Amino acid sequence: MPFASPAVTKRVRAPAASLAALFSPTSIAVIGASSNPTRFTGKIIPTLLRQGYKGTIYPVNAKSAEIAGLKCYPELAAIPGPVDCIVYALAPEQMHNALRGAKQLGAKLLVVASAGFAERGDEEGKRLQDELVALAHENGMRVIGPNCIGFANFADRVCATAAAAMDWPDIQPGRIGLVSQSGGLGFATVLFNALEEGIGFSHVVTTGNEADLDTIDIARFLVNDARTDVIAITIEAVRDPEGFIEFLGLARDAGKPVVVLKSGRTDLGKVMAASHTGALAGSAEVFEAVCRQFGVTCTHDVDEFYQIAAMFGKLRAAGKLKRPVAPGSKCTAFSISGGHIGLFADHASTHGLKFAPFSATTMAAIERELGFSGNFQNPLDTTARAIGDDAFWGRCLRVLLEDESVDIAVPIITVARSYDRAIEDFIALAGESEKIVTVLWAGGSFEGNGMCLLRESTVPVFRTAARAAAAIEALDRYCTVQHREQQDAVWRNAGGAEKARDLLREAAKSGKSSLTERESKEVLTALGFPATKEQAVNTAADAVAAARAIGYPVALKGEHPDILHKSEAGIVFLSLQDEQAVAAAFETIVERMQKAVPGDKRGRVLVQEMLPQGTELILGLTRDPEFGLVVLCGLGGIYVEILNDVSMRLPPFSQDEALRMIGELRGVKILQGARGREPVNLDKVADLLVALGDFAAANRDLVKEVDINPLIAVGGDRLNMADALIVLNKQVS
Amino acid sequence: MPFASPAVTKRVRAPAASLAALFSPTSIAVIGASSNPTRFTGKIIPTLLRQGYKGTIYPVNAKSAEIAGLKCYPELAAIPGPVDCIVYALAPEQMHNALRGAKQLGAKLLVVASAGFAERGDEEGKRLQDELVALAHENGMRVIGPNCIGFANFADRVCATAAAAMDWPDIQPGRIGLVSQSGGLGFATVLFNALEEGIGFSHVVTTGNEADLDTIDIARFLVNDARTDVIAITIEAVRDPEGFIEFLGLARDAGKPVVVLKSGRTDLGKVMAASHTGALAGSAEVFEAVCRQFGVTCTHDVDEFYQIAAMFGKLRAAGKLKRPVAPGSKCTAFSISGGHIGLFADHASTHGLKFAPFSATTMAAIERELGFSGNFQNPLDTTARAIGDDAFWGRCLRVLLEDESVDIAVPIITVARSYDRAIEDFIALAGESEKIVTVLWAGGSFEGNGMCLLRESTVPVFRTAARAAAAIEALDRYCTVQHREQQDAVWRNAGGAEKARDLLREAAKSGKSSLTERESKEVLTALGFPATKEQAVNTAADAVAAARAIGYPVALKGEHPDILHKSEAGIVFLSLQDEQAVAAAFETIVERMQKAVPGDKRGRVLVQEMLPQGTELILGLTRDPEFGLVVLCGLGGIYVEILNDVSMRLPPFSQDEALRMIGELRGVKILQGARGREPVNLDKVADLLVALGDFAAANRDLVKEVDINPLIAVGGDRLNMADALIVLNKQVS
Repeated sequence: MPFASPAVTKRVRAPAASLAALFSPTSIAVIGASSNPTRFTGKIIPTLLRQGYKGTIYPVNAKSAEIAGLKCYPELAAIPGPVDCIVYALAPEQMHNALRGAKQLGAKLLVVASAGFAERGDEEGKRLQDELVALAHENGMRVIGPNCIGFANFADRVCATAAAAMDWPDIQPGRIGLVSQSGGLGFATVLFNALEEGIGFSHVVTTGNEADLDTIDIARFLVNDARTDVIAITIEAVRDPEGFIEFLGLARDAGKPVVVLKSGRTDLGKVMAASHTGALAGSAEVFEAVCRQFGVTCTHDVDEFYQIAAMFGKLRAAGKLKRPVAPGSKCTAFSISGGHIGLFADHASTHGLKFAPFSATTMAAIERELGFSGNFQNPLDTTARAIGDDAFWGRCLRVLLEDESVDIAVPIITVARSYDRAIEDFIALAGESEKIVTVLWAGGSFEGNGMCLLRESTVPVFRTAARAAAAIEALDRYCTVQHREQQDAVWRNAGGAEKARDLLREAAKSGKSSLTERESKEVLTALGFPATKEQAVNTAADAVAAARAIGYPVALKGEHPDILHKSEAGIVFLSLQDEQAVAAAFETIVERMQKAVPGDKRGRVLVQEMLPQGTELILGLTRDPEFGLVVLCGLGGIYVEILNDVSMRLPPFSQDEALRMIGELRGVKILQGARGREPVNLDKVADLLVALGDFAAANRDLVKEVDINPLIAVGGDRLNMADALIVLNKQVS
Repeated sequence: MPFASPAVTKRVRAPAASLAALFSPTSIAVIGASSNPTRFTGKIIPTLLRQGYKGTIYPVNAKSAEIAGLKCYPELAAIPGPVDCIVYALAPEQMHNALRGAKQLGAKLLVVASAGFAERGDEEGKRLQDELVALAHENGMRVIGPNCIGFANFADRVCATAAAAMDWPDIQPGRIGLVSQSGGLGFATVLFNALEEGIGFSHVVTTGNEADLDTIDIARFLVNDARTDVIAITIEAVRDPEGFIEFLGLARDAGKPVVVLKSGRTDLGKVMAASHTGALAGSAEVFEAVCRQFGVTCTHDVDEFYQIAAMFGKLRAAGKLKRPVAPGSKCTAFSISGGHIGLFADHASTHGLKFAPFSATTMAAIERELGFSGNFQNPLDTTARAIGDDAFWGRCLRVLLEDESVDIAVPIITVARSYDRAIEDFIALAGESEKIVTVLWAGGSFEGNGMCLLRESTVPVFRTAARAAAAIEALDRYCTVQHREQQDAVWRNAGGAEKARDLLREAAKSGKSSLTERESKEVLTALGFPATKEQAVNTAADAVAAARAIGYPVALKGEHPDILHKSEAGIVFLSLQDEQAVAAAFETIVERMQKAVPGDKRGRVLVQEMLPQGTELILGLTRDPEFGLVVLCGLGGIYVEILNDVSMRLPPFSQDEALRMIGELRGVKILQGARGREPVNLDKVADLLVALGDFAAANRDLVKEVDINPLIAVGGDRLNMADALIVLNKQVS
């Protein structure tokens, strides 16, 4: 249970398979259905009918005899047959009355479209919401909502929602499973815009206040759903990080890409998200680090969100996600427009895509297909000479797909009377090849069927260079993570880990809120962190003796459980060169400690080895509001303090992951030996990060924060903790 | 002539007004017209006719009697009437024959759509192109192209182009004047995509190889054109930076926003642009610094490009670009979807937009219009309670526009059956108010006319939060620059500048490729840069005497005209504390200099004041391949070397601009006193940057590079050049 956090009760989640039945009800009762189709409550039944619901619909409304041509029932109890799903659209206060009889009908799912619950932000709203869930559970129902706008199971044509976008006639199912807390984002903008682009969904589920079933339950269901190839999620704040991580692991194992539209990443966005959902978003950097770890695409743009999801859906359906290891480094593109080649080259470079030079064979083949020679570069500007030769596009693509250093080919087309011939060739060649073809269609046509052909094919299509490049980067990240061996966290030092935990528990039991430097170092030394030589002393004479034993220069530091910030208390003296300096420093420290905590005798003085100048690193654990303990590393000094150049990972993780983590630092060149420095042994740093990650995973209950600042690398190979601090959680299990 | 650069002969440009007649020809001859409309050469005449050309068209083709219903002429000479414009679509080799008679017809403009000129990349292509221009000029014609696809003057319905996008029926003129070197970008993608969004152009001109009229000529014409409100330019490389800057000044003075689609900003993109246009793009950072200086919008995305241009066009037409000083800091937005408010808040924050808290009056008014109270924040999530009340949107917008701290209001709408009522209200309120309303319509509708209403109005509309936020940032930048007083470069120190130039000229005449540290400092001291105390010495005894006079500790440095990198030559000794150290250092330096340049007696030794520890800055001039000398500043050490944290400006500039330049540094917090440092007097640094800018502007012919590294700030107020190097241009005027 590496992710167990005693601060949060672990949710017991229904098995994903058990949810499938909930979203395929054979009969639906709509409580509060209105016969006015312009009203929210009047949209649900017409939508069910318009989108081809095959089951039985029971409108429930005491004031109508008939709604949308269907017999209306005054109350649930009056319905004859069994009811699988109840849609509730009345005021919160009416729930007890209105839901009477639900159990007898055998209802399993309650979709609450009404607002007026916890989102009100007051106690009464919260109380009503708790009551709603209790009532539903008593009656054997799971709840979606309240304050949601329902769900659409396009695959089975069950669209129980009041969403305005569902006025779209006869929506065809697609490959994306979408779960969105926000109806306005998911069931309005994303759905509508995607439909405009001919992109379909297997399911769209809005979760609203998430009183019972939440985003993760739905996402887990989608991992399990055979008709869903890719899972798209809009997220403001992650309420259950443990569940989220578990879901990401399930999706990874199932080979289903996850695409996330994240908001709440800026201070203002977080405030807005919090007032909208009642949950506090954590640091955007931590969220993005988590996405990186799992190969998840994290985007902030609505169109990019569903378009990248659609790409993944097509490629998975075509079986093309399994082969390429790092497709982003084996790209090609070609166009008759040099302007577009230049623009795409820019966006591709920005997204880290690589274009290998063409092989001699490919060069010759290009020359043959173009009918003229040239110094052909990748990406390939064929120049406008090919205009008018519709078959040229296919011939050129075929040649490029045959190059060994190509995994992805991007034909860039712009505007022509018709592109049908070219597009037919693209689709045929993509079908024959195991490689990936992605069309960048920057423009359009006046005749023919090209866009429809592309949409119905498994060839992804994008309309801007920026979007296409971002999508290929997302694909590269996904494939790279999928091909990584998933190393389990390696517990290199089980004995040390046990000792470290014992020390922590002891400190926690004694009521300490943090460990002293010496205690902190003791814990970390048990984990394998090398400490500087040091000795605690009680007299000036002992201090001098210790200094002699350690070797000059030395540092003297006061240590007291109540003094967290030693430098500010003036009890740190560095680079002491001789006996006299050591003795003087000792007296000053004792004096200042006595002043700071008068009469308290717990203070001690440490004599420490002074490390030679080296490269300063910072390693540590920080607590994210969403994800809990996160391992961080950075370079010391301005890198962290001014430039916020920090790399993060959710623990535990492997040594490879730790190396990638270090590699993400902007200042990594310093560690690699820039500016005449000795390169730091990054494998050793990675080992320490892994150990810190394992420690975090095992001690989430006890540890609030760890700050190893600095860890000094001397001569490249020697690493030493110069200072360290472990802060404990207040509550102890 | 601050921008004169002797390396480039200044182009003599036709007055912008004189170009107007060229683009409104009353008669056009098309040489090489084909009767096959699927061919490139067959598209020109049908396009002219389709887009409503009112003048006379003369097809010229010896093999046809009639083309597109028009009488065909075997050669130019056979045409009876005058011809204003000739479109040439034959092979390069035929030009002499085919253009015979052009002068007699009075033709003023030659549009060369044919390829096979300089873009071939060989000598023959270049020769043909030179010949073409000479021939045209002899015959009294200016040239567009070759290798372009013509132009469209939509305002006068003169569309002389073979562009495929012009199959679009009956294109309505708009407010954007577009000039694009690349036909594929400008006349295909940008035009087509914009037309799809209902956005029109006054002109689209493609310039191809730019053998005669270039991007800047066309852009200057557009500044002068009354029907153009905004100038949109696609740029790969700036071939005439001086002309570009001059144009930006003209556009600024005319109050016409400029929007640029830039490619060639990455290494790969530069290679592609160079092979496409034959011009080398400079640093993307320099180009962006230039854009910042002039309030120009620089974008890399096609859709963002024309959509932001369309916004500027609308707002200028509505007279709304004159009032707001910094509209980005006075934003509001509102929506019934909390999800969208959160997403927009994120994008807005990322783009630096600010949302002031609502006034008490506004809070009360919101409460009144919504019908419920709440802790309303800006941006405003009204929650879904307003659904169904179509008049709510207008009422809410009115209230927000009345808030004093609002300059821009963004209603965010998503999907509804119809938004007509809301949109009518938005347009009416925007018309009544002097403030700016920009609609973010993330979705669509099924009924009504909302999108058409918006497109025909002067209310900008965007479809994604990312785009809307980027556009408002662009607007903010434009308005901020327009409201800045345009300070002329202040020559604070004319005498010093003269002395500096004299020193440079002298050095250049003597054939030096660079100045020594001492000479460099002498030049810079004349400009007002404070130097450290120093003295040149010839003997160890003199060195010791000088050190005593200057005060210990001192630095000793060797100086030799042929040794550029002193540290690497081992002739720099810092922090010398006493006579013995000084004497020893002197001997070592002399010895090493003699070893490095045996027998050469020009070497000297300098004794310098050692500055106390301080904050290190780097100031300098660097030469960009496009824009020539650029002033840069940064913090010393890793900031520049590892993080590339450098800020740049095109000289000359004002002190305010210099302060903004410093403010753009990521590490500016260090200068402001972070990490316990004394804040540096930034006004003084800005003064030095201004002086350096003036120096650059006056000495473009002589200076290749200046590197003041470091400039040490001690105690905040004291600035000293610790080292300096001036490198000279090879060619001297």
